[in-house]
Amino acid sequence: MKIEKTSHSRIRKMNFKNIDFGNQYSDHMFCSEFKNGKWKNSIIKPFGKIMFSPISLVFHYGQAVFEGMKAYKDKNEEVFLFRPEENLKRINRSAARLEMPTIPENIFMIGLKNLINIDRDWVPKYYGQSLYIRPFLIATNGALSAKPSQDYMFIIISAPADTYYKHPLKIKIEEKYSRSASGGIGFTKAAGNYASSFYPTRLANEKGFDQILWTDSSTHTMIEESGTMNVFFHLKNKLITPKFNDNILGGITCKSILSLAEKEGFFVEERNISVSEIIEGLQTGELREAFGCGTAVVINYFKTISYKENNFDLPNLSEKERISLYFKKRLLDIQHNLSEDPFGWRVQLKRYF
Amino acid sequence: MKIEKTSHSRIRKMNFKNIDFGNQYSDHMFCSEFKNGKWKNSIIKPFGKIMFSPISLVFHYGQAVFEGMKAYKDKNEEVFLFRPEENLKRINRSAARLEMPTIPENIFMIGLKNLINIDRDWVPKYYGQSLYIRPFLIATNGALSAKPSQDYMFIIISAPADTYYKHPLKIKIEEKYSRSASGGIGFTKAAGNYASSFYPTRLANEKGFDQILWTDSSTHTMIEESGTMNVFFHLKNKLITPKFNDNILGGITCKSILSLAEKEGFFVEERNISVSEIIEGLQTGELREAFGCGTAVVINYFKTISYKENNFDLPNLSEKERISLYFKKRLLDIQHNLSEDPFGWRVQLKRYF
Ligand SMILES: Cc1ncc(COP(=O)(O)O)c(C=O)c1O
Ligand SMILES: Cc1ncc(COP(=O)(O)O)c(C=O)c1O
Repeated sequence: MKIEKTSHSRIRKMNFKNIDFGNQYSDHMFCSEFKNGKWKNSIIKPFGKIMFSPISLVFHYGQAVFEGMKAYKDKNEEVFLFRPEENLKRINRSAARLEMPTIPENIFMIGLKNLINIDRDWVPKYYGQSLYIRPFLIATNGALSAKPSQDYMFIIISAPADTYYKHPLKIKIEEKYSRSASGGIGFTKAAGNYASSFYPTRLANEKGFDQILWTDSSTHTMIEESGTMNVFFHLKNKLITPKFNDNILGGITCKSILSLAEKEGFFVEERNISVSEIIEGLQTGELREAFGCGTAVVINYFKTISYKENNFDLPNLSEKERISLYFKKRLLDIQHNLSEDPFGWRVQLKRYF
Repeated sequence: MKIEKTSHSRIRKMNFKNIDFGNQYSDHMFCSEFKNGKWKNSIIKPFGKIMFSPISLVFHYGQAVFEGMKAYKDKNEEVFLFRPEENLKRINRSAARLEMPTIPENIFMIGLKNLINIDRDWVPKYYGQSLYIRPFLIATNGALSAKPSQDYMFIIISAPADTYYKHPLKIKIEEKYSRSASGGIGFTKAAGNYASSFYPTRLANEKGFDQILWTDSSTHTMIEESGTMNVFFHLKNKLITPKFNDNILGGITCKSILSLAEKEGFFVEERNISVSEIIEGLQTGELREAFGCGTAVVINYFKTISYKENNFDLPNLSEKERISLYFKKRLLDIQHNLSEDPFGWRVQLKRYF
């Protein structure tokens, strides 16, 4: 792999006390090209623009998949990734569904680790902060006929991040628009899944909601997920979450919470969850908590859930009473190397490897 | 609008007798940028690569919509567009659903007409040939948070084309995979709708089928469309086609056939069409013809429709007996200025305007 370091680091312009997420990127990026059936030209180089042909298939037929992951620092400023092999597996599941080449483990991992090592000063050091890492794979050639591209580019960029949402969420259960179809690509992190949610999300925002809680496209009676989060409900002393299916993106945060909760003796269920069950829980008060989870937000709890123009407020618990905040701390403690790592999720970046 | 003409035309390398569609592009492209809420920097320049930031939202969250249209020549080598205002309306419907800015009529039309005028030698001159034109709109900025980009680029490129499919099609009725969800974006020409079809289409190709006939994602009992074509059935002396809904791309070819057929006294129905009705028609022989239509193929008829592993062959009609080929000729005659244009669909490109 070629490494071209920048001679103009932008790190001194970075204000880690007030991180403007997504508007400041670390100094370098990783690129690797897929051409003639082979991966080649892996390189770490200064973050910057790239030349693309206007016939790149990503512009026309949407062959584009991505991942979202984070690097965290501990008190000694050692840097850790969290379950990166899960991101590799998932981007390759996404790629396969979109007829794109899968990314070999060594290209993904060596690219990732070297990149974050070179940009380790960009990993913020406070609890809850992180370096958000965005690997993505796009079709760079093709033609105008609707068939898969021959050429692809795999890129990794990164940007310092605080926590995504700062306040408890007001959520609207969607009854009209859909995120994905059964038999479709909702289970992948395909770029096309996201643009389609912007319009219904704006409509919800305009009515005062932070996010949509998606339901199945056929009946709008079954709960799927919310924004870029999977969802959990603390209902009748159980922690329940919709079972992953081909409409739902299988989140790594969700899987991690399930593992922790089971190990710690919570009653956990992954199963189909109907809207009416949740509404009933809201009405009877048996729904103690509802929250979303994902790499970006870690965990964010809901304060209001709206259905058919009725707003239901969730119980007004103290922070200590919240299972959501308990698991948020459990996850962050593991990620920041403040507690044991019973499942071996942390991957420490050796300074030289 | 700025015009920068190429000093290295590639037209002499173009073999119009053997058009390799999608591998040769005309000399110029049109670009216009949307920044700070305004369209600016409209330019016609030599076809070539463009610089994009790796944070362009099109790569991550799939804000990308496109159109497909054609320019045709008549015997005097005058150049005609076909219903270009319909493409403008449709790209703007697509853009609005994906929270992208709409394209003003003057930018679309003046860009398009000047571009095709400058590249008029690239419009092939034989009947059935055309210059395929691809306008597309993509998000060029944004950040890593899943919300609409602020900046966009609208581009038009073009490539000489023969007819897309050359042989009658073997079609498989899909029972598992889906193209779009109700409440989703199937009615738009969003890039993301296409990548998701590549994998199921490959599976169908491997079983010997040319294309998938999509059915609704909820029940797989209602017919939608096929590949990049809308579909018609000639059943019991009626010409029927699935009524456009939010799963189906409203094709301009389909609309044009409907108008022509009605005017010429055919019994036409736009309505919901069930799979079982088509299978019954295949079994009783009352389904005389089935065909797909779209800008790329114009019209292509089906010879076999397969459902649940059973192949049903359509009647083996002569070319003269085929309503599909009748309408193909009607459309091409209008497009190539060989017949009257009762609906005013042709738009002649004045050489200077
Ligand atoms: C649609 C969607 N659902 C859920 C998630 C949560 O997944 P993860 O926990 O792996 O970040 C994401 C990603 O952030 C997502 O994009
Ligand atoms: C999915 C889909 N359906 C149908 C069509 C036919 O539309 P039109 O006749 O406007 O080309 C197209 C475009 O070619 C398409 O992409």
